[in-house]
Amino acid sequence: MKFSYANPTIIHFGQGQIQQISSSIPKNAKVLVIYGGGSIKKNGVYDQVVASLSQHSWSEFSGVEANPTKETLDKAIAQVKAENIDYLLAVGGGSVIDGTKYIAAAALHEGDSWDLITGDYKVDNAIPIGVVLTLPATGSESNMGAVVTRKATNEKLGFLSPAVRPKFAVLDPDAMKTLPEKQLVNGLVDAWVHVCEQYITSPTGHMVQEGYAEVLLRNLLELGAQFNQRDDKWRANLMWTANQALNGQIGAGMPQDWATHMIGHELTALWGVDHARSLAIIQPALLRNQLEYKQAKIEQMGRNVFGLEDSADLAERTIQSIEAFYASLHVDTGLSEVSGDKSDAIELIIEKLEHNGYTMLGENRTITPDVSREILTQAL
Amino acid sequence: MKFSYANPTIIHFGQGQIQQISSSIPKNAKVLVIYGGGSIKKNGVYDQVVASLSQHSWSEFSGVEANPTKETLDKAIAQVKAENIDYLLAVGGGSVIDGTKYIAAAALHEGDSWDLITGDYKVDNAIPIGVVLTLPATGSESNMGAVVTRKATNEKLGFLSPAVRPKFAVLDPDAMKTLPEKQLVNGLVDAWVHVCEQYITSPTGHMVQEGYAEVLLRNLLELGAQFNQRDDKWRANLMWTANQALNGQIGAGMPQDWATHMIGHELTALWGVDHARSLAIIQPALLRNQLEYKQAKIEQMGRNVFGLEDSADLAERTIQSIEAFYASLHVDTGLSEVSGDKSDAIELIIEKLEHNGYTMLGENRTITPDVSREILTQAL
Repeated sequence: MKFSYANPTIIHFGQGQIQQISSSIPKNAKVLVIYGGGSIKKNGVYDQVVASLSQHSWSEFSGVEANPTKETLDKAIAQVKAENIDYLLAVGGGSVIDGTKYIAAAALHEGDSWDLITGDYKVDNAIPIGVVLTLPATGSESNMGAVVTRKATNEKLGFLSPAVRPKFAVLDPDAMKTLPEKQLVNGLVDAWVHVCEQYITSPTGHMVQEGYAEVLLRNLLELGAQFNQRDDKWRANLMWTANQALNGQIGAGMPQDWATHMIGHELTALWGVDHARSLAIIQPALLRNQLEYKQAKIEQMGRNVFGLEDSADLAERTIQSIEAFYASLHVDTGLSEVSGDKSDAIELIIEKLEHNGYTMLGENRTITPDVSREILTQAL
Repeated sequence: MKFSYANPTIIHFGQGQIQQISSSIPKNAKVLVIYGGGSIKKNGVYDQVVASLSQHSWSEFSGVEANPTKETLDKAIAQVKAENIDYLLAVGGGSVIDGTKYIAAAALHEGDSWDLITGDYKVDNAIPIGVVLTLPATGSESNMGAVVTRKATNEKLGFLSPAVRPKFAVLDPDAMKTLPEKQLVNGLVDAWVHVCEQYITSPTGHMVQEGYAEVLLRNLLELGAQFNQRDDKWRANLMWTANQALNGQIGAGMPQDWATHMIGHELTALWGVDHARSLAIIQPALLRNQLEYKQAKIEQMGRNVFGLEDSADLAERTIQSIEAFYASLHVDTGLSEVSGDKSDAIELIIEKLEHNGYTMLGENRTITPDVSREILTQAL
């Protein structure tokens, strides 16, 4: 076990914490408030943000879409440059935050913004970012990753840099109160798969990381079961659990998979499938396919997360329990339901994986395009 | 649940990580290496530190004792001022790190160093600190607390400041290889009680914090059971578990107790009892005394940590399980064994608690001097 880890993002957690913005952003900063489709104007979050920025000079950029596109974000980058913005405040969920990270990095680059996805531009600096989280799911509020879509080429790809890790994040569970059920479900599933990508991997015996991951998985199961009895405590527990699922800690020093994400991203890029739902489609088939490597950890998950008894088919029963969890949330796990009757759906995905260089996925680099094809066939 | 939390200390974890010192300390810094009695010269840690500092200008201060004293630390403070030191590197366990924090803060103060304990001097700044941890126990390597003893008055007291949180900490499990068994046991018990102080408190339902705390407690139980089969993995798991026990995370937004620590400190100040052993003496009696407030959480601990079945006396059986854990490590839990035949031992402790203003201890401020007297009587 070897790693270097820190998470310096200051978390302001709890009801009423949006007011912390005021003292968290330097008084002389020129702030751009970035948000999505305007739901924050209906649930009171926008008004609280505006009130908290009363001492600051600020402007705004709205219209960041789910699966934020380079095309939209380029407009924000132009605004940042034109207005000499030096602080970005993302108010939203993972899409707004990821988009803001892209803006923060690309605004300091003279060339095309996509260069930071291709790696032609190395992100060493970025405009500082603050976050007001409205949808617990991606953990983006305190990590250093972002995923962006280029509509022109149907590509959904990510980048990582410590420079885009938010300086602070407000996690006020009240901001979730008006979320549609579908988005809450997506958040539960997204956080669940984030934990799995860092947990269902080959070696065992990292007592802290594995123990914490099991806590988060049990929490998500329990929160799923309590879905129809949502209250303040439920929202607080989901918001903190989803943050922990991808803040770097449970993955520190662990082999990590992320193949479910890489393949799932192509479903979103091709057919606009919700991110979380793309993961639910790919994951069970991938786990069955990679049993050779993952059996011990899947069995551990069966025992410690689902409370299953030992048996020869424990791994298969564990995967079925994962599918039952998705089903209990009314999340489909069939690829054909989203790809429609396109007979060439699988080949389209394989083509894109190859184009993006994702030809050796998984913690053991065993998921070649041929294996991806097997997984996708199983997922139909 | 409401809190603000971040832990910016960069952890370099794993075998061979001591070399990270070289790039973690600014090249132009004037470094003071601070350590204890010289065990690091026998186990190779000192040599690795020296090799890693080959590009730096540095000097050293040795002789920081267990339960570091103001009297010793004042000499280091004088050296820091005389040599214009601007970076401190603590190489040791909790005592060396706590002592280094005291030095780091007091070296920027013109008056008497003890002013930062009394609060007459507010610690807003400190010389930056790096750590090479050799004894996992206190979590001091990534938190903002320190406890120091003034020999002249037999006082053992602490202070907290974000300014003294280490910038980085190297956690190389190999550094523990030559530790005496007694110190390893102390580390296990110290980390155990740290978790308990943040976990066995009144409300329940903080799913992340409580779940993580239970992971750490189960880890420590298991590591205790494997004590005679110690290997690389054992050391790595203990080192990371003990860090997590007091890095602020499991306590974020939780009511916290710390009465066991406050009373235990007096045993150390009066009779030089090892810190961990002072905690083992006080804790069981305190839990029985405060059952009115702590019953629900003690029962939860019984179920989730010790795997006990429900029963009317579940709380008592849980406390007995804690005592059995201490006994399995050959740690005494009787006060009379350390205070000797002093008939006035309890009154001596009460006097000191009152002198230090510790007259309303515990998460509900219910532990008055009279209650402390009851607890100490039970602990005899």
